[in-house]
Amino acid sequence: MADTAAPASLADPVEIARALIRCPSVTPDEGGALGYLEGLLGDAGFTVHRVTLSAPDTPDIENLYARFGTRGPNLCFAGHTDVVPPGDPAHWRFPPFEAAIHGGLIYGRGAVDMKGGVAAFAAAALDLAAEHGDGLPGSISLLITGDEEGPAINGTEKLLRWLADRDERLDHCVLGEPSSRAVLGDMVKIGRRGSLSGTLTVHGKQGHVGYPHLAENPIPGMAKLITALQAEPLDRGNDHFQASNLELVSVDVGNPAFNVIPAEAKARFNIRFNDLWMPGTLKAEIERRLRIAAGNEVRFSVAFEERSSDSFLTAPGDFVDLVVAAINETTGRTPELSTTGGTSDARFIKDYCPVIEFGLVGTSMHAVDESTPVDEVRALTRVYKDIATRYFAAFGR
Amino acid sequence: MADTAAPASLADPVEIARALIRCPSVTPDEGGALGYLEGLLGDAGFTVHRVTLSAPDTPDIENLYARFGTRGPNLCFAGHTDVVPPGDPAHWRFPPFEAAIHGGLIYGRGAVDMKGGVAAFAAAALDLAAEHGDGLPGSISLLITGDEEGPAINGTEKLLRWLADRDERLDHCVLGEPSSRAVLGDMVKIGRRGSLSGTLTVHGKQGHVGYPHLAENPIPGMAKLITALQAEPLDRGNDHFQASNLELVSVDVGNPAFNVIPAEAKARFNIRFNDLWMPGTLKAEIERRLRIAAGNEVRFSVAFEERSSDSFLTAPGDFVDLVVAAINETTGRTPELSTTGGTSDARFIKDYCPVIEFGLVGTSMHAVDESTPVDEVRALTRVYKDIATRYFAAFGR
Repeated sequence: MADTAAPASLADPVEIARALIRCPSVTPDEGGALGYLEGLLGDAGFTVHRVTLSAPDTPDIENLYARFGTRGPNLCFAGHTDVVPPGDPAHWRFPPFEAAIHGGLIYGRGAVDMKGGVAAFAAAALDLAAEHGDGLPGSISLLITGDEEGPAINGTEKLLRWLADRDERLDHCVLGEPSSRAVLGDMVKIGRRGSLSGTLTVHGKQGHVGYPHLAENPIPGMAKLITALQAEPLDRGNDHFQASNLELVSVDVGNPAFNVIPAEAKARFNIRFNDLWMPGTLKAEIERRLRIAAGNEVRFSVAFEERSSDSFLTAPGDFVDLVVAAINETTGRTPELSTTGGTSDARFIKDYCPVIEFGLVGTSMHAVDESTPVDEVRALTRVYKDIATRYFAAFGR
Repeated sequence: MADTAAPASLADPVEIARALIRCPSVTPDEGGALGYLEGLLGDAGFTVHRVTLSAPDTPDIENLYARFGTRGPNLCFAGHTDVVPPGDPAHWRFPPFEAAIHGGLIYGRGAVDMKGGVAAFAAAALDLAAEHGDGLPGSISLLITGDEEGPAINGTEKLLRWLADRDERLDHCVLGEPSSRAVLGDMVKIGRRGSLSGTLTVHGKQGHVGYPHLAENPIPGMAKLITALQAEPLDRGNDHFQASNLELVSVDVGNPAFNVIPAEAKARFNIRFNDLWMPGTLKAEIERRLRIAAGNEVRFSVAFEERSSDSFLTAPGDFVDLVVAAINETTGRTPELSTTGGTSDARFIKDYCPVIEFGLVGTSMHAVDESTPVDEVRALTRVYKDIATRYFAAFGR
């Protein structure tokens, strides 16, 4: 038997989450989610911009920016309403776009990643706007993209540039991605490692396996180089970051014959690196390791992908402290200040203002039966509202 | 200006070679080559069988077996008339199927591999038949396939079985492949290494590069295993064979993403092995090396290809001695008794009778402007005839 839903109100985060989940906003489709938020926020006095961004060879993407207040500082909640595909709905306990509530959980694609988070900060922002009205000592804004799960080309990165072009300033940002690990409040992300990818090619000379002295097999040299790349840790991490890590993601020769020694072998790798490195210093280190291992015996070349991202850190200080205090106030927990995991849109936001990530427990994201406890959505709303309250108390003018 | 061709006669090996080269017998086409030999040998009193062999998913192939004499022992000359494609004829100095003679060389596809050799032993056999007639103290036969350069499924292997099914016995065999290295007579092949191929799979667990502790990357383990496979020589060779050799011919993962740790990696290898190994002992050694290198850390499996070939050796003795003596008589050289290089149809023949390989210099085989000196074709004919003469003197009844 389904639980009885909590009474609906304009600022009920659970009802907002359910309304969002019912919008089938699989990237690149807006699915009605941004339209719903536009109405909700516009009715409450927010200035809402719907921004459609486009680029060659990618679908047009709808995005939204809403602001309450005209003064600084501007505290921004950032997130996305697009979701990954649900797969076969028959595999779900409840239909993925129905937002069923059962056993204290809201089920549906995006419940965790991250319509639950968007609903929580929308409800918190609506409450603040209703409470303070024109008296808010700053502004509260929402930056919502429809292109986080896709190529992320027509999303947050461009929307930030669109805002900057209009002299719209963000002072601090909370990204509502699911940052909690096992229970709400156990982890907040204050940075992310950078990412650098490359392709290593070992050059040989083709020939017949019966006459190896007339050929030069690139594969033993490749084994030597990829072993050398990983022989020593890149670093041991530091106070804020775990150790940098290199993973070989593919090795390919593509030789269909058993009697031919191939002419070359390729390996592709990705490095997640901390703030002890910059892309340039890291590339130099990779090349140094390869040169030493290759000596005069292995002929190689290495090419790095153009799209690398720097690591970043919002160092502990006033902003992080007030976020931690707000989390502690509601959940009773002191979150770990983490920089682990994959990349997020924070990699773009950090070029404009300090950013931290705090949101629901991510365990079920992208999975069948994605779900989040109703109580945690309500608790997250309280945390977001408390963050804003403490923020304006500390930084408001 | 082209040299004047030597005067034609029934048993002129140069004219036979030119007639064969003019047949465009690119595998699987017979191109008229076997028909020409059938006429030539049939007219001289040879009993000729044209045998068309077939198998699913391969083209039908024409083959030929011709015998002069009905008594034993039966000395067989073996070879093939099919050739590899010539590529763009415009790259050739002379058209590849014209058999031009220039500067003492016969030019054309197959001049070396191995219409020159077939012509030489056909001419030698015709001479012997003409000289001895019914008085030949044994039989001389020619076993010619049209499927040596192709998949070799409808060629020598099946033709030998076809003969055995008819109680046709071969006592010794000379395979006329181009065995000489720099000059006619410098090398005779008395054996070949065996060949064993396999695929090594290292099993991991797929995951996101940002969370390597939740995944298991198979690539470092693969690098470790393929390094271990080659860390120690398989052996150091022996009096007749060079060392066995393992070559990695491909390594493949096929992961197109930079942010995904792959689930498995595959490596393919081929081993050319001497008579210190049998396929079974070699497989056991490969598995032993992999198990030791893998320990409890690397999960792997290995699968060997079904089509392996044993090594073989026609040990020095009366037959090899008379071949060496015949080579020395004509060329003045004492050939190296070699077992190097790739496989040949001798791998099939050795299951029926002792076999050695002796033929022209192989340098230009499969290349543009394939060519062979007219003088060496004539000298090879003398060697083949001398081999037969010495053979019947030693073994004839």
